[in-house]
Amino acid sequence: MTTVVKLGGSVITDKERDETLDGRALDRAADHIADASTDDLVVVHGGGSFGHPHADEHGVSTTDGTQDADGALAIHGAMTTLNRFVVERLRERDVPALPVHPLSAAARADAARLSLPTDQVSTMLGEGFVPVLHGDVVAHEGKGVTVLSGDEIVTHVGKAIGADRIGVCSTVPGVLDADGDVIPRIDAFGDVADALGGSDATDVSGGMAGKVRELLALDRPASVFDLDGLDAFLAGERPGTTIE
Amino acid sequence: MTTVVKLGGSVITDKERDETLDGRALDRAADHIADASTDDLVVVHGGGSFGHPHADEHGVSTTDGTQDADGALAIHGAMTTLNRFVVERLRERDVPALPVHPLSAAARADAARLSLPTDQVSTMLGEGFVPVLHGDVVAHEGKGVTVLSGDEIVTHVGKAIGADRIGVCSTVPGVLDADGDVIPRIDAFGDVADALGGSDATDVSGGMAGKVRELLALDRPASVFDLDGLDAFLAGERPGTTIE
Repeated sequence: MTTVVKLGGSVITDKERDETLDGRALDRAADHIADASTDDLVVVHGGGSFGHPHADEHGVSTTDGTQDADGALAIHGAMTTLNRFVVERLRERDVPALPVHPLSAAARADAARLSLPTDQVSTMLGEGFVPVLHGDVVAHEGKGVTVLSGDEIVTHVGKAIGADRIGVCSTVPGVLDADGDVIPRIDAFGDVADALGGSDATDVSGGMAGKVRELLALDRPASVFDLDGLDAFLAGERPGTTIE
Repeated sequence: MTTVVKLGGSVITDKERDETLDGRALDRAADHIADASTDDLVVVHGGGSFGHPHADEHGVSTTDGTQDADGALAIHGAMTTLNRFVVERLRERDVPALPVHPLSAAARADAARLSLPTDQVSTMLGEGFVPVLHGDVVAHEGKGVTVLSGDEIVTHVGKAIGADRIGVCSTVPGVLDADGDVIPRIDAFGDVADALGGSDATDVSGGMAGKVRELLALDRPASVFDLDGLDAFLAGERPGTTIE
């Protein structure tokens, strides 16, 4: 059983303060991961208050790039700092976590064509390690570097390594309808377009509409839940919203 | 014109003290790289006093591995620290350097089969960046993680990206004969086996015999020189020993 779980950047960082960890939330997430008995686990985390402020400052998104090495290094450096925190908290709980930085591995020929080889991830899993990836900047043909979001990493890696279970731990307990209630199951974007702000909603990285689109494009079911649902997900249940 | 140049770990670190930079040597190397007018440049550096002590402590080499995440992280962490120094010194001279950590990208199925995809390196080059790789630990099937040496990275990446020129900056001005004189040209290992301690000499990482073997296996010429030869090499000359 291979599981890919994403810890949202907004879950493990304090969104109100730049480059500030939400240490209690990260500890809770790390506790659940340490307690999980899943065989092969890949962890992916987002940028939260680490990556996003630097990306905004340098005008870098999933579609707009920079050829300025200082800008690229500012965003990448903030993300590797957050990654170090995540790996350390997991190591404190004896999870055999190893960092995998997408800038070192991935490239885009264009927006639709991502090259992110996963031999390193599969080999780490086979050797008993827990690879920890993260949203990052990656080299992008004609654009310098652009943002590769944690959500896209989840779907790309999940598919590439043939993951059995994919989960996204968000700040909300699932995809919510107009009344704020969790939608248990989503089969098509049209079913939830209104609740998510319409199908034209632009949230290139981090938003719920983008997550749902990414996860619908997968050829396997995925779950969206919050920290309260993480232990249930890791125990094999389907908390929150199932997207299939 | 694409060039791959390796800065030996012993060149840019103080071999006598653990995790100590040879700041003056690194500054000289960075000056030469900043002055070079080569179009596409990939920099690779070795481990020197950063990687090797940790690798020794944890019993990790190119053939012996560890499944202990702490050991893997100790070696990897020392190497990324050195990589940060190298990238910073290059950035101080406006070289658009970006880090590429092999642990994030490479894996071995067995000793002879290295997977180290290079789309990220090629795309960085195309966007005007200077990728900076380094000796590292990488996941290795059945062995946990083992060492991937800077020398093997040079030959693998040089071949994969179709580099026109490959240079190894060492602590000696070239491959030396029994009298200590530079051998200008080497076509076969047998020609120099005696001077290099015989063909049975075992130096899995960092030694001259290993370098010569790696570079002879390349389908293009390579140069071995020291810091005094670096500017000449980057200017298109063939200082030191040419291995073909």
